[in-house]
Amino acid sequence: MDALTYGEPSKAKKSVLRKIEEQAEELAYLQRKCRELGIPVLIVVEGLSAAGKGTIINQMIQPLDPRGFKVTCIASPSRDEQLRPFLWRFWRRTPSAERMAIFDRSWYRNLLDAQVNDSLGAKDLQKAYSDVRAFERQMRDGGTVIFKFFLEVSKKEQATRLAALQSNPVTAWRVSDAVLQRHAKYREYQEAVESMLQQTDLPDSPWLKVASKNTNQATLKVLSNLVSTLRKRVHEASREVSPDPRPGLSKLPAFSNAPHLSNADLTSQLSKDSYRELLEARQRKIQELHHEVYRLRIPVVLVYEGWDAAGKGGNIRRLTERMDPRGYEVIPVSAPNDLEKAHHYLWRFWTEFPKAGHVTIFDRSWYGRVLVERVEGFCTEAEWKQAYREINEMEENFRHFGTVMAKFWVHVDQEEQLRRFQAREQNPRKQWKLNEEDWRNREKWKPYEDAVNEMFLRTHAPKSPWTLIEGNCKRFARIKALDVVIAAIERGIADKSR
Amino acid sequence: MDALTYGEPSKAKKSVLRKIEEQAEELAYLQRKCRELGIPVLIVVEGLSAAGKGTIINQMIQPLDPRGFKVTCIASPSRDEQLRPFLWRFWRRTPSAERMAIFDRSWYRNLLDAQVNDSLGAKDLQKAYSDVRAFERQMRDGGTVIFKFFLEVSKKEQATRLAALQSNPVTAWRVSDAVLQRHAKYREYQEAVESMLQQTDLPDSPWLKVASKNTNQATLKVLSNLVSTLRKRVHEASREVSPDPRPGLSKLPAFSNAPHLSNADLTSQLSKDSYRELLEARQRKIQELHHEVYRLRIPVVLVYEGWDAAGKGGNIRRLTERMDPRGYEVIPVSAPNDLEKAHHYLWRFWTEFPKAGHVTIFDRSWYGRVLVERVEGFCTEAEWKQAYREINEMEENFRHFGTVMAKFWVHVDQEEQLRRFQAREQNPRKQWKLNEEDWRNREKWKPYEDAVNEMFLRTHAPKSPWTLIEGNCKRFARIKALDVVIAAIERGIADKSR
Repeated sequence: MDALTYGEPSKAKKSVLRKIEEQAEELAYLQRKCRELGIPVLIVVEGLSAAGKGTIINQMIQPLDPRGFKVTCIASPSRDEQLRPFLWRFWRRTPSAERMAIFDRSWYRNLLDAQVNDSLGAKDLQKAYSDVRAFERQMRDGGTVIFKFFLEVSKKEQATRLAALQSNPVTAWRVSDAVLQRHAKYREYQEAVESMLQQTDLPDSPWLKVASKNTNQATLKVLSNLVSTLRKRVHEASREVSPDPRPGLSKLPAFSNAPHLSNADLTSQLSKDSYRELLEARQRKIQELHHEVYRLRIPVVLVYEGWDAAGKGGNIRRLTERMDPRGYEVIPVSAPNDLEKAHHYLWRFWTEFPKAGHVTIFDRSWYGRVLVERVEGFCTEAEWKQAYREINEMEENFRHFGTVMAKFWVHVDQEEQLRRFQAREQNPRKQWKLNEEDWRNREKWKPYEDAVNEMFLRTHAPKSPWTLIEGNCKRFARIKALDVVIAAIERGIADKSR
Repeated sequence: MDALTYGEPSKAKKSVLRKIEEQAEELAYLQRKCRELGIPVLIVVEGLSAAGKGTIINQMIQPLDPRGFKVTCIASPSRDEQLRPFLWRFWRRTPSAERMAIFDRSWYRNLLDAQVNDSLGAKDLQKAYSDVRAFERQMRDGGTVIFKFFLEVSKKEQATRLAALQSNPVTAWRVSDAVLQRHAKYREYQEAVESMLQQTDLPDSPWLKVASKNTNQATLKVLSNLVSTLRKRVHEASREVSPDPRPGLSKLPAFSNAPHLSNADLTSQLSKDSYRELLEARQRKIQELHHEVYRLRIPVVLVYEGWDAAGKGGNIRRLTERMDPRGYEVIPVSAPNDLEKAHHYLWRFWTEFPKAGHVTIFDRSWYGRVLVERVEGFCTEAEWKQAYREINEMEENFRHFGTVMAKFWVHVDQEEQLRRFQAREQNPRKQWKLNEEDWRNREKWKPYEDAVNEMFLRTHAPKSPWTLIEGNCKRFARIKALDVVIAAIERGIADKSR
């Protein structure tokens, strides 16, 4: 990339510089508008070594208000990141509604390396690309504008630039052996790039190839693309026009053999004595499996949903009572806070994904989208309908990473719930557990039932199945949940050991 | 630690179990009260291997609402954490006003290891202990209640427990070589522990030694301590009594040769031609030094404070224009958001500390505490007076880590500010930069001047000095700031290379 020059520029160059300045000023304006309108922006700058990514990014951010963007440089994943699904570290960094997230390299970096070095099987590579496509679609459906720039550099030009870096004692260390090896494999990388561009040039997140030979031209091209796309998006948002009708609402997945609330046998019971004995054996087993899970680095995700006062808390407590607190975490989920609201609704769940070897227990979960948010009208019909697919994709992503999953609906009938509410009312130590919202929710029993049954139908998958827990008898419910967790972990251990 | 038993307990044991239950219930109540009153709670559980830390923590959290606490297990610092001052990873995890943070091991872990293995010189160890004492005092002065439990285990008991772990195939892997080595050095560890307890048994964060032989007794002791201390604190907070008069307000540090606003020569000027030439040379130099800083892993922290419209933004832009965006970040600081408000006021700055080798530029900073918050009355007089010491301690902490620091006050006089405000008003592209608050701040010029001069006096330290930048001529101001940054980095490189 030719150096920025300070001297007196030629006439042609002057004209380009003037245009850059115009676009930069417009971009600064659009950044403020996006912020006002709550439009998150995600910019990916990809390219091989010495393609000039740093220079382009610095040109891009000069006009911007630093309050409104964050540049993230993507290197190889850290140890901590390797213990999560590969998209985890990108989900964590997705922009909030007030920010631009600028990525210097991205989720594509390791996929390119994997393809060239053949370090991932063809099948796993396909899975990864499919996860990437789902990720970008979800971002976009959540209102994020995505830009993907690919900076092109010829092998010859790359050689020249690397030589220039090497000849300067201050920058020579940047040309590592790994960089030279990648340079030697230029042709293989070029092929991997073409395949990557083809597989991920999506209607709502297309690639823009940018020749990097001339910095000013490249800058102008990038700025112009940012400006024209954002101008369109800001225009739409100002008129409160939804960007496009959302696709895919009709063909939702539905799984057979999913549970149904009408199938619950709420007369199921367990005596105090049998309970005590079974509980002890189950807790010992869990303690043992917890060690195994840690040793084998298997992540475990457990989801507890259920009616108010169904006994989720007590059920979870029996599960964790003898577990090592260093290896599990209970995440109670309530209404999102401001920061969470400013992100994609799945963001806060992605960020809580356990390290491989750890257990995360969600006390309520992402299913809130298709339960409370649906019933109470906190999101639009299009949004909760679309959520089934997004949730299935997220859980599939977790399974690609070898995650053990179990999902519970702890069920009680209306009479039992009423008894428990009344008991809480009368116990001064438990009154705080009950509020007006609980009483209001009770009145919407039927719409909630419909939502629960549809959730079962649309999100019951072989490796992340729903279990309906009959909860009128708390003892029965606790043992049943423990049994399901034990079976799921044992299957996970068997899969891993194969 | 003896196992929890399920069978029929003895009479004495029954009495202990009943007391544990009472304390647990009371703790659950106090947790909710602390949350309502906004009292952050920090609990440290320390102890040698197999002292039963996990068991005690699990007993402690069983009665708690999972919404209100977080257990963090402290292992050796990750690569990312090693690139920050050692307290960084603990600052990041300090509790918000709605949370209990429970640490399984803590900042004491590595200090113990360092003392036994002699991996830190005596002088550096003293520095570290002094940083720890300042950290705990700051937490406490910020309203956090700190508990520090040290679980004692005899060498014999440790041997028995390790043998039990080893004999079980499920837990044998937990007894690593490192654990056995520490066991062999039991006596050395015991000595290090005694010295640590002595040096950090502070009035407001005392250690409580807990014999771990009998789990129930240990649990009861820990729960009782939590309950009695929190009950006292909740009582005080409910009556809105400040816990204690804050000490140390009288003997504030003051540095000679600090700048003073009256010394600024605002007639300083630089012609356009000289500016262009000097700018080019300085920017090239910065670009070069930025590479060196990265290579040598030196963290750089630059602070820009100044009047509204003094030109901080443009000044920062000239500094970063040719820097590699992967190695610097501009952090614009405005009023804290909800999450930030729920933490210690220094929390958000600690979390933004650059990785070693990176440059972080704060556009406004922690000095807001002694500037805007002081002048506008956003904090109490005791709070901003105490802040000088806390800020000096934080910066000293940064310096202990080898951080290069420079702090700028960009200065203009009232006439120049008025000219710039009026120019902004008349330029439709710049109107957004000006708001009513700017006009209001102008009216408090004198109290701000006093605050600035006192800030200079109290926080001008040899390795984090203030520089007064005369800003009526923007060109002059930019070159002067660049020169100071260059000199500071060159000194840092020389120090590091020695």
